Amino acid sequence: MRSAEIIAVGSELLTPEKTDTNSLWLTEKLGEIGISVMLKTIVGDDEPRLKEAIQDALKRSDVVITTGGLGPTEDDITRQVTAKALGRELVHRPELEEELRERFRRFGREMPEINVRQAYVIEGAEPLANPNGSAPGLFVEDAGRTLVVLPGPPRELKPMFETHVRPRLERLGDGMIVRRRVLMVAGLGESAVDEKIAPIYQKYENVRTALLFTKTEVQVHFYARAEDVESAEEVLNELVERSVAELGDAVFSTDGEAMEEVVGRMLRERNETLALAESCTGGLIGRRVTEVAGSSDYFLEGAITYSNAAKTRVLGVPAETIEAHGAVSAETAEAMAAGMRERSGADHAVSVTGIAGPGGGTEEKPVGTVFIGIANAGGVRSVRIVLPGDRYIIRWRASQAALDVLRRSLLRADRASGGRDYSLT
Amino acid sequence: MRSAEIIAVGSELLTPEKTDTNSLWLTEKLGEIGISVMLKTIVGDDEPRLKEAIQDALKRSDVVITTGGLGPTEDDITRQVTAKALGRELVHRPELEEELRERFRRFGREMPEINVRQAYVIEGAEPLANPNGSAPGLFVEDAGRTLVVLPGPPRELKPMFETHVRPRLERLGDGMIVRRRVLMVAGLGESAVDEKIAPIYQKYENVRTALLFTKTEVQVHFYARAEDVESAEEVLNELVERSVAELGDAVFSTDGEAMEEVVGRMLRERNETLALAESCTGGLIGRRVTEVAGSSDYFLEGAITYSNAAKTRVLGVPAETIEAHGAVSAETAEAMAAGMRERSGADHAVSVTGIAGPGGGTEEKPVGTVFIGIANAGGVRSVRIVLPGDRYIIRWRASQAALDVLRRSLLRADRASGGRDYSLT
Repeated sequence: MRSAEIIAVGSELLTPEKTDTNSLWLTEKLGEIGISVMLKTIVGDDEPRLKEAIQDALKRSDVVITTGGLGPTEDDITRQVTAKALGRELVHRPELEEELRERFRRFGREMPEINVRQAYVIEGAEPLANPNGSAPGLFVEDAGRTLVVLPGPPRELKPMFETHVRPRLERLGDGMIVRRRVLMVAGLGESAVDEKIAPIYQKYENVRTALLFTKTEVQVHFYARAEDVESAEEVLNELVERSVAELGDAVFSTDGEAMEEVVGRMLRERNETLALAESCTGGLIGRRVTEVAGSSDYFLEGAITYSNAAKTRVLGVPAETIEAHGAVSAETAEAMAAGMRERSGADHAVSVTGIAGPGGGTEEKPVGTVFIGIANAGGVRSVRIVLPGDRYIIRWRASQAALDVLRRSLLRADRASGGRDYSLT
Repeated sequence: MRSAEIIAVGSELLTPEKTDTNSLWLTEKLGEIGISVMLKTIVGDDEPRLKEAIQDALKRSDVVITTGGLGPTEDDITRQVTAKALGRELVHRPELEEELRERFRRFGREMPEINVRQAYVIEGAEPLANPNGSAPGLFVEDAGRTLVVLPGPPRELKPMFETHVRPRLERLGDGMIVRRRVLMVAGLGESAVDEKIAPIYQKYENVRTALLFTKTEVQVHFYARAEDVESAEEVLNELVERSVAELGDAVFSTDGEAMEEVVGRMLRERNETLALAESCTGGLIGRRVTEVAGSSDYFLEGAITYSNAAKTRVLGVPAETIEAHGAVSAETAEAMAAGMRERSGADHAVSVTGIAGPGGGTEEKPVGTVFIGIANAGGVRSVRIVLPGDRYIIRWRASQAALDVLRRSLLRADRASGGRDYSLT
């Protein structure tokens, strides 16, 4: 497999407030065409260090990509320093200057003379057009190595990579490509997931598997390496199918769909509606459901009933229920869901009440205790879960668990009716 | 100013799904003691590349910090490779092995023999105790350079840096320290903020200023370099005071407090309560308000009235108002706020209705049009704003604008009453 290095240029990337995100994206895209990133460097607008970084990288790796430092100001040194590192001249290209002037004219402005430097190209290099900015990129072959110079802003870099760089680098690869599939799991921990599927994925020699535990779910990333896209997809289909067979309903997505999108799609397919009654999540579930464009088709309303009085007044939870069992209880969760369903007329009402912390925990109901209620045509039920983490994480996981309760309830309804042939793959 | 490099070790950091966050934290901490990070390298579990990275870094920089690769497995090569890079031996330390065995005993487990390698120390290096993990760190002086070897998990690295590394490196610095202050601004764009305060901060030679436009606010980060903490704080106080004088009420925080915390504190100080009526933000404002622990003291309830029917039924917005002016209008926003205030009995009710996109825009009301209503003892008002960005960003900015309308209304009420001496500094 060919090796690559990425050099991110810019003093702002060496401050505590900025991080280099281009390299994550480039790493995935290079992987797709069989080129493996072996080292990343972040260097300031610092001539000797940048020159050394480029020269060292070209000694070690087949492909070197620099990002950033192509602007028109004094600080933007990548163009000059790259030329020096290669021992080549910068050559003025009148046709590039004319394109730059034309670009400024289109925006009704005169080109500042300082931008002329963006019309200089390293001797023997191919300029790469940048439709979203004034800095062209560069593609240079040098002593069997390939050096690619790209601008820093992601909205300039990404289309330039796709249009100009990927096709040129594809030739360089070993003919192998990599494709990714992500499996998302709710209701099982990271090690439980791994225990179930490790015996499956370990048998695939050309698949790299990475498990990630995000704030809401366990994600399983499969990267399949193969000779062509079809073979990679075939391996991924098989692997996903076998993993889903093992994990069952805990898998909610195999194509990158987030939980709120999955639930939204299921409601839309059924032509059914949703309402929410949130206490400890404080609006987070509503926010997630309505993050999906078009959610107004199935989401009717939500109530954030933070105080006990609001639970009673808005949702009709009897004060005696709260008195007898507490605001955080199965009884209250069920009364919240039933009240919301009745008031809104929605097909499904989901409620959440819990202790997100840091205060408020007891021995019987520690911080992280959450009750989720669900009311639909079949009646009212609730589940109790205890979530680990801080306030922020507990709230996110409670929101995920609530949506997952709804998802599983929709799946069960389908099975009970013997109807819908719902498949996750 | 002394220079530093950070080398993050671990093949997982060269995958598309993981990013190195330790280095941002270390950059800030090193800056505080007058040491400037000049280069960052991310390298896999790859002996030749790691060895070269360490040797190159020690040639260029006064301080080199490696993070990660200190675990007990075959992949964890930092200890051995660092020794090789320095041309020194690894020496077994029986007392470290005993501590490790004791650590495992405390957790009721036998130490796996593989962990013995964590009891090896580079010749002449000082081991650094790790209270949160089994891998000790290392502190090595070599030919006038300093090499610090730390584990990768942030909960191990951070306390080790604070306890062992910072005091040792402080001696190395030039005696200058750096302190940071963050000013947060709402209701003004990045360039408007810069135009106002650049003439102020540019006069401070020993202050670095960075403007960041996050999804909710413009942040101004001031880093003051001085001989001691008192002098740095004095400069920062003066700079912040002069900036606030220029920016006025647009500054909502000078000590890192988020908008939801500022508003929460103001409500608590006044012993007043809040209710929310959200349409296009779908619960995001409620989620932000309740992210603050203890918010149940002032937050009563929220309604996510996504459908027109819910606006009418839950908040009493007359159907004719929606019919005549549209769901996204000043009239609807005001009726939502008034209805929520009446129903909840809260002192302040804030409402939001708008077009978050991607669909739904018209010439008169393009995507990003948002109306914010506010009802309190003084009556009902509304403002119209047009926000740039995609659905996600528009929703975040709408939530921020809504909380900012409340904040400014609370400030105005204070001024009108001639009461409270509220100061942001």
